[in-house]
Amino acid sequence: MSAGFPDWIEQVAWNADGLVPVVTQDAASGRLLTQAWMNREALLRTAREGLAIYWSRSRQVLWQKGEQSGHVQRVREIRLDCDSDSLLLVVEQQDGIACHTGRESCYFQQLERDQGDQARWRTVDPVLKAPEDIYRR
Amino acid sequence: MSAGFPDWIEQVAWNADGLVPVVTQDAASGRLLTQAWMNREALLRTAREGLAIYWSRSRQVLWQKGEQSGHVQRVREIRLDCDSDSLLLVVEQQDGIACHTGRESCYFQQLERDQGDQARWRTVDPVLKAPEDIYRR
Repeated sequence: MSAGFPDWIEQVAWNADGLVPVVTQDAASGRLLTQAWMNREALLRTAREGLAIYWSRSRQVLWQKGEQSGHVQRVREIRLDCDSDSLLLVVEQQDGIACHTGRESCYFQQLERDQGDQARWRTVDPVLKAPEDIYRR
Repeated sequence: MSAGFPDWIEQVAWNADGLVPVVTQDAASGRLLTQAWMNREALLRTAREGLAIYWSRSRQVLWQKGEQSGHVQRVREIRLDCDSDSLLLVVEQQDGIACHTGRESCYFQQLERDQGDQARWRTVDPVLKAPEDIYRR
Protein backbone atom coordinates (compact mmCIF):
# COMPACT_ATOMS: atom_id res chain seq x y z
CA MET A 1 0.00 0.00 0.00
CA SER A 2 1.06 3.62 -0.50
CA ALA A 3 -1.08 6.63 0.27
CA GLY A 4 -4.04 4.39 0.88
CA PHE A 5 -4.00 2.62 -2.48
CA PRO A 6 -2.74 -0.93 -3.06
CA ASP A 7 0.49 -1.49 -5.00
CA TRP A 8 -1.31 -2.77 -8.10
CA ILE A 9 -3.12 0.55 -8.37
CA GLU A 10 0.15 2.48 -8.08
CA GLN A 11 1.73 0.26 -10.76
CA VAL A 12 -0.50 1.95 -13.33
CA ALA A 13 1.28 4.87 -15.06
CA TRP A 14 -1.26 7.55 -14.11
CA ASN A 15 -0.91 10.72 -16.18
CA ALA A 16 -0.27 14.20 -14.76
CA ASP A 17 -4.00 14.51 -14.00
CA GLY A 18 -4.04 11.17 -12.20
CA LEU A 19 -5.99 9.52 -15.01
CA VAL A 20 -5.57 6.62 -17.42
CA PRO A 21 -7.51 5.95 -20.64
CA VAL A 22 -9.73 2.85 -20.56
CA VAL A 23 -11.12 0.99 -23.55
CA THR A 24 -13.96 -1.41 -23.02
CA GLN A 25 -14.73 -4.46 -25.15
CA ASP A 26 -17.79 -6.69 -25.18
CA ALA A 27 -16.93 -10.23 -24.09
CA ALA A 28 -19.61 -11.76 -26.28
CA SER A 29 -19.50 -9.82 -29.55
CA GLY A 30 -15.87 -8.68 -29.33
CA ARG A 31 -16.99 -5.17 -30.30
CA LEU A 32 -15.14 -2.16 -28.97
CA LEU A 33 -17.81 -0.39 -26.95
CA THR A 34 -16.45 2.75 -25.31
CA GLN A 35 -13.36 4.73 -24.45
CA ALA A 36 -13.35 6.55 -21.13
CA TRP A 37 -11.08 7.49 -18.23
CA MET A 38 -10.38 6.23 -14.72
CA ASN A 39 -8.63 7.64 -11.68
CA ARG A 40 -7.29 5.48 -8.85
CA GLU A 41 -10.60 5.39 -7.01
CA ALA A 42 -12.51 4.39 -10.16
CA LEU A 43 -10.15 1.48 -10.81
CA LEU A 44 -10.24 0.30 -7.21
CA ARG A 45 -14.03 0.41 -7.09
CA THR A 46 -14.35 -1.28 -10.50
CA ALA A 47 -12.21 -4.18 -9.28
CA ARG A 48 -14.01 -4.33 -5.95
CA GLU A 49 -17.59 -4.08 -7.23
CA GLY A 50 -17.25 -5.83 -10.59
CA LEU A 51 -19.09 -3.08 -12.43
CA ALA A 52 -17.36 -0.51 -14.64
CA ILE A 53 -16.94 2.82 -12.86
CA TYR A 54 -15.26 5.67 -14.72
CA TRP A 55 -14.12 9.23 -14.03
CA SER A 56 -15.97 11.98 -15.86
CA ARG A 57 -13.48 14.65 -16.89
CA SER A 58 -16.27 17.09 -17.80
CA ARG A 59 -18.27 16.67 -14.57
CA GLN A 60 -15.28 15.76 -12.36
CA VAL A 61 -17.14 12.92 -10.68
CA LEU A 62 -17.04 9.13 -10.56
CA TRP A 63 -19.88 7.57 -12.51
CA GLN A 64 -21.00 4.01 -12.76
CA LYS A 65 -21.66 3.09 -16.37
CA GLY A 66 -25.39 2.51 -16.68
CA GLU A 67 -26.36 4.37 -13.53
CA GLN A 68 -29.02 6.24 -15.50
CA SER A 69 -29.62 3.96 -18.48
CA GLY A 70 -29.41 0.63 -16.68
CA HIS A 71 -26.81 -0.42 -19.26
CA VAL A 72 -24.22 -1.51 -16.70
CA GLN A 73 -21.01 -3.28 -17.67
CA ARG A 74 -20.14 -6.40 -15.65
CA VAL A 75 -16.38 -6.75 -15.64
CA ARG A 76 -14.92 -10.07 -16.70
CA GLU A 77 -11.28 -9.01 -17.14
CA ILE A 78 -9.14 -5.97 -16.40
CA ARG A 79 -5.98 -5.73 -18.49
CA LEU A 80 -3.06 -3.31 -18.51
CA ASP A 81 -0.86 -2.62 -21.52
CA CYS A 82 2.91 -2.98 -21.89
CA ASP A 83 3.55 0.65 -20.93
CA SER A 84 1.09 0.41 -18.03
CA ASP A 85 -0.62 3.55 -19.30
CA SER A 86 -3.78 2.13 -20.89
CA LEU A 87 -6.43 -0.20 -19.47
CA LEU A 88 -8.74 -2.66 -21.21
CA LEU A 89 -11.97 -3.89 -19.65
CA VAL A 90 -13.66 -6.97 -21.07
CA VAL A 91 -17.28 -6.80 -20.01
CA GLU A 92 -20.75 -8.24 -20.26
CA GLN A 93 -22.75 -5.31 -21.56
CA GLN A 94 -26.25 -5.17 -20.11
CA ASP A 95 -28.81 -5.27 -22.96
CA GLY A 96 -25.97 -5.17 -25.49
CA ILE A 97 -26.19 -1.37 -25.59
CA ALA A 98 -23.22 0.74 -24.52
CA CYS A 99 -23.87 4.02 -26.33
CA HIS A 100 -26.15 6.80 -25.11
CA THR A 101 -27.54 6.91 -28.66
CA GLY A 102 -29.00 3.43 -28.12
CA ARG A 103 -26.42 1.63 -30.24
CA GLU A 104 -24.30 -1.36 -29.25
CA SER A 105 -21.04 0.56 -29.54
CA CYS A 106 -20.03 4.20 -29.44
CA TYR A 107 -17.91 3.60 -32.55
CA PHE A 108 -20.75 3.72 -35.05
CA GLN A 109 -19.31 6.29 -37.47
CA GLN A 110 -17.20 4.70 -40.18
CA LEU A 111 -14.97 6.58 -42.57
CA GLU A 112 -16.10 6.21 -46.16
CA ARG A 113 -13.54 7.42 -48.64
CA ASP A 114 -14.40 9.23 -51.83
CA GLN A 115 -11.72 10.45 -54.19
CA GLY A 116 -8.31 11.65 -53.14
CA ASP A 117 -8.35 12.89 -49.56
CA GLN A 118 -12.12 13.41 -49.52
CA ALA A 119 -14.18 11.22 -47.23
CA ARG A 120 -17.13 11.28 -44.84
CA TRP A 121 -18.11 9.74 -41.52
CA ARG A 122 -21.11 7.50 -42.14
CA THR A 123 -23.33 6.05 -39.41
CA VAL A 124 -23.25 2.31 -40.05
CA ASP A 125 -24.78 0.74 -36.91
CA PRO A 126 -28.49 0.60 -36.04
CA VAL A 127 -30.16 2.16 -33.02
CA LEU A 128 -31.31 -0.79 -30.88
CA LYS A 129 -33.36 1.27 -28.44
CA ALA A 130 -34.49 4.88 -28.74
CA PRO A 131 -32.72 7.22 -26.30
CA GLU A 132 -36.08 8.57 -25.09
CA ASP A 133 -36.97 5.04 -24.02
CA ILE A 134 -33.58 4.49 -22.40
CA TYR A 135 -33.61 7.66 -20.32
CA ARG A 136 -37.34 7.81 -19.56
CA ARG A 137 -38.01 8.18 -15.84
CA MET B 1 -11.29 22.06 -46.50
CA SER B 2 -10.13 24.38 -43.76
CA ALA B 3 -6.49 25.23 -43.05
CA GLY B 4 -5.36 22.58 -45.50
CA PHE B 5 -7.21 19.66 -43.94
CA PRO B 6 -10.41 18.13 -45.32
CA ASP B 7 -13.68 18.60 -43.42
CA TRP B 8 -13.77 14.99 -42.16
CA ILE B 9 -10.45 15.59 -40.40
CA GLU B 10 -11.77 18.74 -38.74
CA GLN B 11 -14.92 16.89 -37.62
CA VAL B 12 -12.77 14.96 -35.14
CA ALA B 13 -12.81 16.60 -31.68
CA TRP B 14 -9.05 17.13 -31.40
CA ASN B 15 -7.89 17.84 -27.85
CA ALA B 16 -5.99 20.96 -26.75
CA ASP B 17 -2.75 19.37 -28.00
CA GLY B 18 -4.30 18.58 -31.39
CA LEU B 19 -4.42 14.86 -30.62
CA VAL B 20 -7.02 12.10 -30.37
CA PRO B 21 -6.65 8.68 -28.70
CA VAL B 22 -6.76 5.72 -31.08
CA VAL B 23 -7.47 2.10 -30.19
CA THR B 24 -6.59 -0.59 -32.66
CA GLN B 25 -8.28 -3.95 -32.99
CA ASP B 26 -7.25 -7.02 -34.96
CA ALA B 27 -9.79 -7.79 -37.70
CA ALA B 28 -9.12 -11.53 -37.51
CA SER B 29 -8.80 -12.31 -33.79
CA GLY B 30 -10.85 -9.40 -32.47
CA ARG B 31 -8.12 -8.72 -29.90
CA LEU B 32 -7.45 -5.18 -28.76
CA LEU B 33 -3.89 -4.61 -29.88
CA THR B 34 -2.71 -1.12 -28.98
CA GLN B 35 -3.71 2.31 -27.78
CA ALA B 36 -1.89 5.26 -29.30
CA TRP B 37 -2.42 8.84 -30.47
CA MET B 38 -2.93 10.62 -33.78
CA ASN B 39 -2.73 14.21 -34.90
CA ARG B 40 -4.42 15.50 -38.07
CA GLU B 41 -1.50 14.57 -40.30
CA ALA B 42 -1.32 11.03 -38.87
CA LEU B 43 -5.03 10.47 -39.56
CA LEU B 44 -4.84 11.89 -43.07
CA ARG B 45 -1.83 9.76 -43.95
CA THR B 46 -3.37 6.64 -42.39
CA ALA B 47 -6.47 7.05 -44.55
CA ARG B 48 -4.42 7.86 -47.63
CA GLU B 49 -1.80 5.12 -47.31
CA GLY B 50 -3.86 2.38 -45.65
CA LEU B 51 -1.20 1.70 -43.01
CA ALA B 52 -1.52 2.83 -39.40
CA ILE B 53 0.53 5.96 -38.71
CA TYR B 54 0.51 7.42 -35.20
CA TRP B 55 1.91 10.44 -33.39
CA SER B 56 4.56 9.78 -30.77
CA ARG B 57 3.99 12.11 -27.81
CA SER B 58 7.39 11.26 -26.32
CA ARG B 59 9.40 11.73 -29.52
CA GLN B 60 7.07 14.31 -31.10
CA VAL B 61 7.19 12.65 -34.50
CA LEU B 62 4.89 10.71 -36.80
CA TRP B 63 5.71 7.00 -36.84
CA GLN B 64 4.41 4.26 -39.01
CA LYS B 65 3.54 1.23 -36.90
CA GLY B 66 6.00 -1.49 -37.86
CA GLU B 67 8.58 0.82 -39.41
CA GLN B 68 11.30 -0.92 -37.39
CA SER B 69 9.72 -4.27 -36.56
CA GLY B 70 7.98 -4.91 -39.87
CA HIS B 71 4.76 -5.46 -37.90
CA VAL B 72 2.71 -3.01 -39.93
CA GLN B 73 -1.04 -2.63 -39.51
CA ARG B 74 -3.12 -2.65 -42.71
CA VAL B 75 -6.22 -0.58 -42.09
CA ARG B 76 -9.58 -2.16 -42.89
CA GLU B 77 -11.85 0.32 -41.08
CA ILE B 78 -11.51 3.70 -39.39
CA ARG B 79 -14.28 4.47 -36.91
CA LEU B 80 -15.10 7.52 -34.80
CA ASP B 81 -17.07 7.42 -31.56
CA CYS B 82 -20.27 9.26 -30.64
CA ASP B 83 -18.39 12.19 -29.08
CA SER B 84 -15.98 12.30 -32.05
CA ASP B 85 -13.08 12.26 -29.59
CA SER B 86 -11.86 8.67 -29.93
CA LEU B 87 -10.87 6.65 -32.99
CA LEU B 88 -10.94 2.91 -33.63
CA LEU B 89 -8.84 1.24 -36.29
CA VAL B 90 -9.68 -2.28 -37.38
CA VAL B 91 -6.54 -3.72 -38.92
CA GLU B 92 -4.78 -6.72 -40.37
CA GLN B 93 -1.79 -7.06 -38.08
CA GLN B 94 1.32 -8.23 -39.91
CA ASP B 95 2.60 -11.48 -38.33
CA GLY B 96 -0.11 -11.22 -35.67
CA ILE B 97 2.31 -9.33 -33.40
CA ALA B 98 1.51 -5.78 -32.32
CA CYS B 99 3.54 -5.44 -29.11
CA HIS B 100 7.24 -4.56 -28.95
CA THR B 101 7.57 -7.43 -26.45
CA GLY B 102 6.74 -9.88 -29.27
CA ARG B 103 3.20 -10.57 -28.08
CA GLU B 104 0.00 -10.37 -30.13
CA SER B 105 -1.43 -7.55 -28.04
CA CYS B 106 -0.01 -4.90 -25.74
CA TYR B 107 -2.72 -5.81 -23.21
CA PHE B 108 -1.01 -8.90 -21.84
CA GLN B 109 -1.15 -8.06 -18.13
CA GLN B 110 -4.35 -9.27 -16.49
CA LEU B 111 -5.49 -8.33 -13.02
CA GLU B 112 -5.65 -11.32 -10.71
CA ARG B 113 -7.47 -10.60 -7.48
CA ASP B 114 -6.45 -12.03 -4.14
CA GLN B 115 -8.34 -11.14 -1.01
CA GLY B 116 -10.01 -7.83 -0.32
CA ASP B 117 -8.41 -5.07 -2.37
CA GLN B 118 -5.20 -7.00 -2.95
CA ALA B 119 -4.39 -8.08 -6.49
CA ARG B 120 -1.53 -8.39 -8.98
CA TRP B 121 -0.95 -7.85 -12.69
CA ARG B 122 -0.11 -11.22 -14.21
CA THR B 123 1.37 -11.72 -17.68
CA VAL B 124 -1.06 -14.09 -19.37
CA ASP B 125 -0.11 -14.00 -23.07
CA PRO B 126 2.86 -15.76 -24.68
CA VAL B 127 5.77 -14.12 -26.47
CA LEU B 128 5.39 -15.17 -30.12
CA LYS B 129 8.75 -13.82 -31.28
CA ALA B 130 11.69 -12.70 -29.16
CA PRO B 131 12.28 -8.93 -29.27
CA GLU B 132 15.95 -9.49 -30.18
CA ASP B 133 14.77 -11.32 -33.29
CA ILE B 134 12.21 -8.65 -34.10
CA TYR B 135 14.57 -5.70 -33.87
CA ARG B 136 17.70 -7.40 -35.23
CA ARG B 137 19.26 -5.44 -38.08
